Amino acid sequence: MEHFDNTICAPATASGGAMAVIRISGLHAIRCVDRIFKGRTSLAEAQGYSMHFGSVIEADGSLLDEVVVSVFRAPRSYTGENAVEIACHGSEYIVSRILALLLQNGAKMAAPGEFTQRAFLHGKMDLSQAEAVADLIAAQTAAAHRIALKQLKGGFSRELAGMRSELLNLASLMELELDFSEEEVEFADRSQLRELVEKVLAHCEKLIESFRLGNSIKNGVPVVIAGNTNSGKSTLLNALLGENRAIVSDIAGTTRDTIEETCNLDGVLFRFIDTAGLRESEDTIEQIGVERAYEKIAAAQLILAVLDLTQPVEELLASASDISVRMTEEQQLVFLLNKADAVPVPVSTEARRALSPLLASADRQVYTISAKDGIGLEDLRHALAATWRNVDTASETSLVTNARHLDALQNAATALRRVQEGLGDSDARPPIPTDLLAQDLREALYHLGSITGEVSTDEILGNIFKNFCIGK
Amino acid sequence: MEHFDNTICAPATASGGAMAVIRISGLHAIRCVDRIFKGRTSLAEAQGYSMHFGSVIEADGSLLDEVVVSVFRAPRSYTGENAVEIACHGSEYIVSRILALLLQNGAKMAAPGEFTQRAFLHGKMDLSQAEAVADLIAAQTAAAHRIALKQLKGGFSRELAGMRSELLNLASLMELELDFSEEEVEFADRSQLRELVEKVLAHCEKLIESFRLGNSIKNGVPVVIAGNTNSGKSTLLNALLGENRAIVSDIAGTTRDTIEETCNLDGVLFRFIDTAGLRESEDTIEQIGVERAYEKIAAAQLILAVLDLTQPVEELLASASDISVRMTEEQQLVFLLNKADAVPVPVSTEARRALSPLLASADRQVYTISAKDGIGLEDLRHALAATWRNVDTASETSLVTNARHLDALQNAATALRRVQEGLGDSDARPPIPTDLLAQDLREALYHLGSITGEVSTDEILGNIFKNFCIGK
Repeated sequence: MEHFDNTICAPATASGGAMAVIRISGLHAIRCVDRIFKGRTSLAEAQGYSMHFGSVIEADGSLLDEVVVSVFRAPRSYTGENAVEIACHGSEYIVSRILALLLQNGAKMAAPGEFTQRAFLHGKMDLSQAEAVADLIAAQTAAAHRIALKQLKGGFSRELAGMRSELLNLASLMELELDFSEEEVEFADRSQLRELVEKVLAHCEKLIESFRLGNSIKNGVPVVIAGNTNSGKSTLLNALLGENRAIVSDIAGTTRDTIEETCNLDGVLFRFIDTAGLRESEDTIEQIGVERAYEKIAAAQLILAVLDLTQPVEELLASASDISVRMTEEQQLVFLLNKADAVPVPVSTEARRALSPLLASADRQVYTISAKDGIGLEDLRHALAATWRNVDTASETSLVTNARHLDALQNAATALRRVQEGLGDSDARPPIPTDLLAQDLREALYHLGSITGEVSTDEILGNIFKNFCIGK
Repeated sequence: MEHFDNTICAPATASGGAMAVIRISGLHAIRCVDRIFKGRTSLAEAQGYSMHFGSVIEADGSLLDEVVVSVFRAPRSYTGENAVEIACHGSEYIVSRILALLLQNGAKMAAPGEFTQRAFLHGKMDLSQAEAVADLIAAQTAAAHRIALKQLKGGFSRELAGMRSELLNLASLMELELDFSEEEVEFADRSQLRELVEKVLAHCEKLIESFRLGNSIKNGVPVVIAGNTNSGKSTLLNALLGENRAIVSDIAGTTRDTIEETCNLDGVLFRFIDTAGLRESEDTIEQIGVERAYEKIAAAQLILAVLDLTQPVEELLASASDISVRMTEEQQLVFLLNKADAVPVPVSTEARRALSPLLASADRQVYTISAKDGIGLEDLRHALAATWRNVDTASETSLVTNARHLDALQNAATALRRVQEGLGDSDARPPIPTDLLAQDLREALYHLGSITGEVSTDEILGNIFKNFCIGK
């Protein structure tokens, strides 16, 4: 049997449904399927975007299943190649037999992400769009979905293309200077050069900055639950996850002493991080736990400081101050006066009054709750979700959500800063020779181009597509 | 928003794949999808069996996903109605949003099996074919797949139609006699009547008998592992499941003391039943366990009797006889001389010799094994699988796999036996008046008709389709 090295197949749907779809792509995809398919006519003459009812036939001539076959002709297909989709009954047995028949008839199993990789190689999408396909499938919230879709539709790619075109413009101006450098020609456009670099660099930095938000939306807003031991942190975590437990997932903590769980609150994905109780014993190992808790606090965007109302108000204030002094301006701090069920109302009123000096910033709030009895939690959930929904809706430009893109943007920014320095700030001859600056510029262009795949290596492609699922 | 009460939607694929398919069916299916879909042209004019690339649009005008929509026009669809399939990215978020949009635009969620139920109601398939759809999806082995597919393609239905047509023929002959009964006309065709009833009854009984095999193929051949305590039954069970554990499923036992697990050996599905050790203490509760083990032995098609080679040969023989005397001719008995690793070769030779009087029938075999070390298990597996593969391949007629069909066939057979008795065995006037016989005949026709749904009630339909998955 002749083999079609370039024709790949894989199940495109998960097992367990009423129907299943098997995807085949490659120059000989249609011929390969035609060998196992019996319909009213041969698929050989089938037009693109046409559907055919018929049977998949085993090698011994027996019927395997009745199917609907969809035929796509290059370049009008997902991969840009000839492609076929076989929709069969959702039986694992049938799916495995159809795949076996396709392999016997010249196809080979697709590697993870190979369909999307082919779409990239055939110019159907650039690399950042290909990566957005995986993000789109994984998106759990409206916000994550919107970012992935924008990236898939090329919004981010267009932004990058704009930056690259400005840098190419800059490069040609530099070439010009390079050509005339021997002749001591006065270089009129120095300020224009500086402006261009500054503009692109600013754009780069804005995108780099957006990663914090973009990553929060994609992987969940990191919320650290901090407080003294026995202040009710774990009870709060369970209460917050409560009715949403079904869609909770465990993320193996990087440290043994913190627990991370994601949870979708009113359409915003949060990653709650339960930390070791602060101010514990003098025990060395416990001290390490406390240190790690402080590290988590430093890295979080939002801190829920759990304070125990049954403790003396001075203790409570000391605990609040301890966390408060560690906050940066960009972090949001919410004080939770917990165990409201166990104390009379005046106690929490007094605690609120004591805390008021710590609430200077608008990003700081205080809620009276009982994690045990669920008092005040609904308000807290809505407040958390509302804050983050607003942040997201407000954002206009692209948000970077991919660590590879962040890395490339940071490298590009570094190179651009070297160009900026090299250009100096006067119209005098620059301190660095223009040909070295041109080299830095090319580096910035390379890094920006690596995001969309205008420059790419097998290694980059391998790293990106190995994380895709089979059949995508 | 106008609602289309008759238009249903549901996901047709399981969540977790690269792509997902949402199915819509009903008079207004195409109109409903057209409201949320934006392609090059409206779907209103789309032909049947046509595909359309485009976007699903949220109510606020924003893009939800790029999809391929397949349009089917009544009656050329699975349900026989207008139908649409939306192939989107395999994201749970996207699938849930598309369903929400369809509901907002007039569709309602499909009940389990509702697509197939509609296919039945629109005459695309009869009831036994509809039931075969669920069996086909659940089939785990080639044999189970073959039976389900034969039933889906109408093989079983045609057999039933043949039986019904012969009975209808018989009924008209009876009507003839009824018409002339007052006139003492000699009834010439009495022997023809008897022949017809006998023929259909024999067919009925053959089908009833096939249930034992059909059910074994569908739900696994029941194999009871029996033997004294400590003879190594559980070790054997684990060893047999061994490398196949991944596809093992637990069936909650009807009794607390037996464990059932299914396992695919060389393409044959077995249901292994581990029983309590026989001949245990005088303890009442343990005695109940032993009684249940004997019940399982009586119901099994194949018994693996595990004998402990480290015990004295008299004990071993006593244990073998105890099981052996309970066997019927239809049951297959395999003696396993276990713990071969722990005894010298002559011991098992002697045990084999002692067992030989019990091996009279061809359906009895003996294997020397070590469940612990895996000795002889490969041979045993192949032998088990081979026996059952041959049985299956040999069968020519339909195999009944469905308990509802068995029930209907048994009721039909009972009615036919009454007709047979009523006709008597001579040409004299039958002992039972012909109009009563005609009543029995109608009953037999009713029961046979209930299998394919020629006669059906809402209750029957409800019971059948409630066990289907959503989207089928």
